[in-house]
Amino acid sequence: MPLNQHIVLDNRPTGQASVSNFKLLSSQTPALQDGQVLVRHHYLSLDPYMRGRMNDSKSYAAPQPLGQVMLGGTVGEVIESRSPAFSPGDTVVGMGGWQQYSVVNAEQPGALRKVDTTHVPLSHYLGAVGMPGVTAWYGLEKIIAPRAGQTLVVSAATGAVGSAFAALGKARGCRVVGIAGGPEKCRYAVEELGFDACIDYKQHGDAASLAQALKEACPDGIDGHFENVGGMVLDAVLLRMNAFGRIALCGMIAGYDGQPMPLRHPALILTQRLRVEGFIVSEHMEIWPEALKELGALVGSGKLRPRETVAQGLEAAPEAFLGLLKGKNFGKQLVKLI
Amino acid sequence: MPLNQHIVLDNRPTGQASVSNFKLLSSQTPALQDGQVLVRHHYLSLDPYMRGRMNDSKSYAAPQPLGQVMLGGTVGEVIESRSPAFSPGDTVVGMGGWQQYSVVNAEQPGALRKVDTTHVPLSHYLGAVGMPGVTAWYGLEKIIAPRAGQTLVVSAATGAVGSAFAALGKARGCRVVGIAGGPEKCRYAVEELGFDACIDYKQHGDAASLAQALKEACPDGIDGHFENVGGMVLDAVLLRMNAFGRIALCGMIAGYDGQPMPLRHPALILTQRLRVEGFIVSEHMEIWPEALKELGALVGSGKLRPRETVAQGLEAAPEAFLGLLKGKNFGKQLVKLI
Repeated sequence: MPLNQHIVLDNRPTGQASVSNFKLLSSQTPALQDGQVLVRHHYLSLDPYMRGRMNDSKSYAAPQPLGQVMLGGTVGEVIESRSPAFSPGDTVVGMGGWQQYSVVNAEQPGALRKVDTTHVPLSHYLGAVGMPGVTAWYGLEKIIAPRAGQTLVVSAATGAVGSAFAALGKARGCRVVGIAGGPEKCRYAVEELGFDACIDYKQHGDAASLAQALKEACPDGIDGHFENVGGMVLDAVLLRMNAFGRIALCGMIAGYDGQPMPLRHPALILTQRLRVEGFIVSEHMEIWPEALKELGALVGSGKLRPRETVAQGLEAAPEAFLGLLKGKNFGKQLVKLI
Repeated sequence: MPLNQHIVLDNRPTGQASVSNFKLLSSQTPALQDGQVLVRHHYLSLDPYMRGRMNDSKSYAAPQPLGQVMLGGTVGEVIESRSPAFSPGDTVVGMGGWQQYSVVNAEQPGALRKVDTTHVPLSHYLGAVGMPGVTAWYGLEKIIAPRAGQTLVVSAATGAVGSAFAALGKARGCRVVGIAGGPEKCRYAVEELGFDACIDYKQHGDAASLAQALKEACPDGIDGHFENVGGMVLDAVLLRMNAFGRIALCGMIAGYDGQPMPLRHPALILTQRLRVEGFIVSEHMEIWPEALKELGALVGSGKLRPRETVAQGLEAAPEAFLGLLKGKNFGKQLVKLI
């Protein structure tokens, strides 16, 4: 069996996460038992939710246990199988973690899913046609539920979720406005991802200034908002929400390091009769097939052309992850493991 | 035609409202035209929403115009009619405003509604079997939608909305916990209104302390919350919400004078996957008949015995209204006009 490099959570961050929270180890992969398959990971997905799990606090997910392999989505290839459901050569997506190989109990429902790379590159099953894409789909379809002609806003616009959100929103006939950090990302959002406009939040020092920019980009107000960031962005968006607007709360990365992140004007939820709803997409597995079908078609037809930032080698994962939390990535952040 | 005393909004408050914002005037009631009826008001309803309308700011309702009769719900008796739909002696509920008489265009849908006082005292049509009761019903039934056995919390527990909420919640087999100001109100909530427990927020200096009291009163956490107050109360409740909980935002009286009222931990909406929804009951007229039917039955059967605080005479309305904003009332605040 091959030698497997893996990264464990060595200690929990106090304040900002750092590379010293992680430790790179290696060990022999165990021999397969009946029903198990050995997967060689091609790509590891890095996602903001991982930061939340590094804390030992009440959250939607159990904390990442210390000393164990960091959880994470992976795509790869079956290289050995003792399960009738998988054969060597199958391309699969699963939750293999921050490591080069994983041994998977293939009969466990949802543990491993075969994917077709004819029209969709393998790595996209970690992004646009994977968890981030389905996240965008759920928030848009099940919480925001827009009508054609309405105005939608999404923060972290050029990320894996934001770019899928744009394609899905445009497919529903909506005006879609992004919020991203820096002129390069904003230009990319409009020119490549199909956003009708994109606001560079780094040009705005406070919520009032950002709200003014939103007023210009959303002349009819905002009917639906997909929040990946929180903090100043959410404050500003609230000031521009139309009556009966819906806000899907998916991430509040601005507060992941534990800094206070109050919402300044919650009374607007009342006066504008808004619905604000938090969700985590893994609790809604029933919608994944429908969502993945639409997302796969959007990618296959070229209507969704997601960008990826790829770090090379497992040892690069911690640094790439910390960069993701600071918005240094451009599009979906991956680690290439082969 | 009789002489009609009425109260107008003379000027807008800066900060706290005061009696000097109002002016008492009198004038002759005009002669009736075809389709109109003259109503003598028996009771005027005072409600927290009126404070919001005194400001000239973006809210769910248009600002109260200066120099015009303050808007408000009234019950009374038809004393003259030029409409085939109403006869002298009919007891009616409407939006007669802060005055002794009103001339109503009876054919305007919803302007005037006949009510039966056989089982329900006339004044209750301004409270438990009126707008406040329907408000409780909408928040509970359409937003919180609890299952039997779940735990519900309501702030301003002994008010018109809170007391109706308790009866409706108990009718659905829920544990209902109130938050109110002072030991007398809390005792009344448990002994008379059927609350399973009631917390005196005045005993708690901050959200953490109030959250601890909620933990004791809600050992299984909170599944649904009906918010009339905002501020510290909402901060504390959020800390105790169960996953997938629902919060109906109906009032944020804590911020009506314009003081900042941030929500300290909005990330809990995400991590607990909550739904927070603001509403105004007059935008959901389609549910009123069903709600009023249930509320009337609860009052008629003695399961809901709402308390009233009654000020005497129109000239007492401003002082009574300011007391309501400070929680000086006990149950539904009315002004008796006859």
